[in-house]
Amino acid sequence: MQSFLELAEKRQSDRMYNDQPVEKEKLERILEAARLSPSACNGQPWKIIVVDNFELKNKIADATSSKALGFNHFTKQAPIHLVIVEESTNFSSKIGGLIKRRHYPDTDLGILASHITLAATDEGLGSCVIGWLNEKKVRKLLKIPASRRVALLILLGYPKAAHREKIRKSITDIVSYNIY
Amino acid sequence: MQSFLELAEKRQSDRMYNDQPVEKEKLERILEAARLSPSACNGQPWKIIVVDNFELKNKIADATSSKALGFNHFTKQAPIHLVIVEESTNFSSKIGGLIKRRHYPDTDLGILASHITLAATDEGLGSCVIGWLNEKKVRKLLKIPASRRVALLILLGYPKAAHREKIRKSITDIVSYNIY
Repeated sequence: MQSFLELAEKRQSDRMYNDQPVEKEKLERILEAARLSPSACNGQPWKIIVVDNFELKNKIADATSSKALGFNHFTKQAPIHLVIVEESTNFSSKIGGLIKRRHYPDTDLGILASHITLAATDEGLGSCVIGWLNEKKVRKLLKIPASRRVALLILLGYPKAAHREKIRKSITDIVSYNIY
Repeated sequence: MQSFLELAEKRQSDRMYNDQPVEKEKLERILEAARLSPSACNGQPWKIIVVDNFELKNKIADATSSKALGFNHFTKQAPIHLVIVEESTNFSSKIGGLIKRRHYPDTDLGILASHITLAATDEGLGSCVIGWLNEKKVRKLLKIPASRRVALLILLGYPKAAHREKIRKSITDIVSYNIY
């Protein structure tokens, strides 16, 4: 593989996918990379529902679209939808979060999403993290308990479009030394 | 580099560092990997303060320790402390967060921390993300405006201890197919 920096450069949010199915071994390696994700106090507050059933996946895709707002109408193209459910974290992370007034699972889920999308890139796959979804509909479709938050959706598939250059703030905009 | 999965396996929270300084080029590649991190609506709600001044770094280390609770007394060993400050995100991410009752920067900062620690691992460095810090003290030491949240501290340095095996939930505990 390339260096991590090259991998980070290659990863992008893909919004067009072709029909090629994702190989089982690739998906399994991505899920293993997800499993290894670190989290606050090792709480691992997540479950991943792999939606690869064609009809169900299309229903999930409908629950992430908002035609009125023009959001995410491309999601149906991706053959695999990973639905990320937030689970209860452990005692240490909860206590720490209470004292520091933070909800650490939000950060943990960012790390998890990062592992999944970088692992997908490493497998030559495209991915896209979707934060905008109709939780109620997704919960019903996948029989997720009402007590659980449906946090994110991650699309996986072979991308159709080429690599784009990234638009980011410059290093001097975001980095300083020994003082703010 | 190894595969992403091997990199994810190698990354660990290091709590012992030796005296070897971190090369400037390595630090710069890690910061570049951080800069490329994705975020909700590309809001990039972060600033990174590199603390590599010896005295200042030790003061920051004191602000992350809680001797009474036995927390993080090892931080002084790491030659570089990255202080991650949460910045205001952009309009789209704010609006989306309001509607969905989420604070997307928490997730964004998880992604950023993930890029930094994985890039560090790729450079043969150790790292550790610390969520437990005395914000007030850190803010004062680095002249961070009162309006900004000091989100995380990330230690960087050459690790002293060997690789540990990871303790994680099993794949069947966290992954299911087409149903919760």
